[in-house]
Amino acid sequence: MHFTSEQRLDDGVLEREFTLGEIPGILWTPASASASAPAPLILLGNPPLGLRKMYPRLVARARHSAADGFATATIELPGSGDRPRWPAAEQARADLRRAMEASEPVSDEIVDALTLPLVEKAVPEWQAALDALLSLPEIGGPVGYSGGVISIGIRLAVVEPRISAAVLFAGSFVPRAMFEEARQVTIPLHVLLQWDDEGNDRQSALDLFDAFGTKEKTLHANMGGHTGVPQFTGDAAAQFFARHLR
Amino acid sequence: MHFTSEQRLDDGVLEREFTLGEIPGILWTPASASASAPAPLILLGNPPLGLRKMYPRLVARARHSAADGFATATIELPGSGDRPRWPAAEQARADLRRAMEASEPVSDEIVDALTLPLVEKAVPEWQAALDALLSLPEIGGPVGYSGGVISIGIRLAVVEPRISAAVLFAGSFVPRAMFEEARQVTIPLHVLLQWDDEGNDRQSALDLFDAFGTKEKTLHANMGGHTGVPQFTGDAAAQFFARHLR
Repeated sequence: MHFTSEQRLDDGVLEREFTLGEIPGILWTPASASASAPAPLILLGNPPLGLRKMYPRLVARARHSAADGFATATIELPGSGDRPRWPAAEQARADLRRAMEASEPVSDEIVDALTLPLVEKAVPEWQAALDALLSLPEIGGPVGYSGGVISIGIRLAVVEPRISAAVLFAGSFVPRAMFEEARQVTIPLHVLLQWDDEGNDRQSALDLFDAFGTKEKTLHANMGGHTGVPQFTGDAAAQFFARHLR
Repeated sequence: MHFTSEQRLDDGVLEREFTLGEIPGILWTPASASASAPAPLILLGNPPLGLRKMYPRLVARARHSAADGFATATIELPGSGDRPRWPAAEQARADLRRAMEASEPVSDEIVDALTLPLVEKAVPEWQAALDALLSLPEIGGPVGYSGGVISIGIRLAVVEPRISAAVLFAGSFVPRAMFEEARQVTIPLHVLLQWDDEGNDRQSALDLFDAFGTKEKTLHANMGGHTGVPQFTGDAAAQFFARHLR
């Protein structure tokens, strides 16, 4: 992991951009984090829109978390931002757009093509980032995962024992295969659902919530579309992490 | 309204029992409430188990609310506690028990008989209690309603303009007629659902949430049965009232 830039935000949060091999990322640490008082870490998942586009929302979440004593980090997803595209994913995105514009049902084939290769690529990258981040003296455990493409969060929750709790946003199509993986999740979950999400099937999201194998799971459903998540939702998610990452 | 007893709890909360005609009730006010600083009020709905049986849970909610600056009050439901039973309600309760013990579906007739007369009787009583409570100098508006039999909460939210926000527990069977009333609710709602509630149909609860006419509604679903509502749920409900009753 190479730090490529560093700045201190006005609230004392240290923001450092880094690269991990070819993957760009950002790490935010609260002013209080040090080798003698390492901060618990929250991995901030993000949609495949690119870090630069998502930066304002990510930094807002990072500041909120830092105020609660948490470090946060995010990495660019495969095929997003300046990272090389791959043709199959581009094709799947185009197919999805076409289906949605035509108000056609989104087929399992499209959902699988859009999601499964992304999960396969992204999860080992998150794990490599976790290795690097946890080697920093000012970062400690436990680790949470928040947001982003829900299928990536599900796979991470299953395969990565260092993740202790997750906030998942039921805001993207989920391949059928991921429902089976969801049954294997045993960490505490806080699941957000936008009741009228145009990019997501509500019943499928409720079925997914039902499928999660964990005993401690909470669903927070709010009104509005995909991008209409209310402000106060962030407070509830922060309290969830405060309960589980201390 | 006649106060029949008064005690100061160890956290400074003033607990007063009262009668309103033949209806017993309890009022809790925070130590800070006064004529010059009247406290907003939360009406605490309760299941038809009787105030005495529910007292430990009610007083815990009252103390929690008082710490946030809210007065709380509750009244005995018609047919509960020491109030006279009425035969039709007793019959409906017996029919419900029989159906549930036999794992039979609970018919619309049973749900209607159990609920609609209770709503008809209870709502005007709550309104009379509200008249009396709001005439006290240490109680001000706005007013919230929390918990209890959800159909009573729905009717109150529709007919009582002094109620500004409600926390509803989707934990009892809801007559079909109430779904139509739910569409007329326009105040902010915070709806709790126990995912595996044995005394409630999950899909019906989700349909009810969908039916509410209000634009600001949130569903919080947690694991467990009817009585397994997790502790942290109270914090989220308190924050909802803090947002809407100040």
